[in-house]
Amino acid sequence: MKVSIGVSNRHVHLTDEHLKILFGNEFKLEKIRDLNQPEQFVSNSFVTIKTNKNMIEHVRVLGPTRSYTQVEISKTDAYYLGIDPPVRDSGDIKGSSGVTLIGPEGVLNLEEGCIIATRHIHILPEQIKLYGLEGRNIVNVKLYGEKGGIITNVHLKVSDKSYFELHLDTDDANAHMIKNGDIGEILWKN
Amino acid sequence: MKVSIGVSNRHVHLTDEHLKILFGNEFKLEKIRDLNQPEQFVSNSFVTIKTNKNMIEHVRVLGPTRSYTQVEISKTDAYYLGIDPPVRDSGDIKGSSGVTLIGPEGVLNLEEGCIIATRHIHILPEQIKLYGLEGRNIVNVKLYGEKGGIITNVHLKVSDKSYFELHLDTDDANAHMIKNGDIGEILWKN
Repeated sequence: MKVSIGVSNRHVHLTDEHLKILFGNEFKLEKIRDLNQPEQFVSNSFVTIKTNKNMIEHVRVLGPTRSYTQVEISKTDAYYLGIDPPVRDSGDIKGSSGVTLIGPEGVLNLEEGCIIATRHIHILPEQIKLYGLEGRNIVNVKLYGEKGGIITNVHLKVSDKSYFELHLDTDDANAHMIKNGDIGEILWKN
Repeated sequence: MKVSIGVSNRHVHLTDEHLKILFGNEFKLEKIRDLNQPEQFVSNSFVTIKTNKNMIEHVRVLGPTRSYTQVEISKTDAYYLGIDPPVRDSGDIKGSSGVTLIGPEGVLNLEEGCIIATRHIHILPEQIKLYGLEGRNIVNVKLYGEKGGIITNVHLKVSDKSYFELHLDTDDANAHMIKNGDIGEILWKN
């Protein structure tokens, strides 16, 4: 089964409360482009991620706001920042790494919330049946190209609001020389 | 067949002539640590890689000097520098990317020499026989761990001066969350 690939650069999701702290009380995130996942969008707002060791500026905030604040970075970023975030599904932030976020109007010290996102495929419940993936939580995916391979531990993220797509971080993308929009192939067998 | 993994951060090899341009006429590379590959060593000398878009400071020079100057970076570095180097075996630099190197004593504009190194395994001729790899130039390697997988297009680099070891760049290492000294497994079948 072919699947298109979306490459996620480092980004941040914010709660309403944290958005206010970083950008001011009246601030609303402005949509500049829809993401493929329903209702999700790219904003034109940016924050700086800061740790004791280093900082990374110009990290994009995605919208809409969520019930949790989450900072998604790559392992390469993690080395640069001097932290060791766990590999987690989105929303599973308990005990993850702390970082400081700096916005134009304020600073936010997060005790947790920074993760490396699990490789995952967004998929509809009816596609799980259609593609014969019942009973599976994890698949392998073949990536093509000069530095291709087979990636394991790719989580199926089933939701009624899904666009069928494999999400990889920039480390996975750059290691395999994959670009946004490239095609992989789901392998049934582990 | 198990194989230990060496992770190569970005680095530079220099000719005698280019070493003089960057570090001065009388300069010799000082060995601070042997690498696993025979006669190869880590020096305490660094250069800056510069392009029209960006620069990366503190890039280590490996020794001894060679018959060609070569700059080995990752795809992540390449995006940062705004260049598109080819994936090449070491020494195969014809038509590769140009960069500027800056040393403490001089500047060197390279028209070519910057590559992304092919994934490769250093291996002795007798190990090729011992491990049943006759007739193969390329193998796959299984990488373990939370973000593991199988990498393809791993070149066998046969030489009488070899220490048996898989060399990966930091993109491959970080994508799979592999550290220096971790173990992979060579898979015979492509």
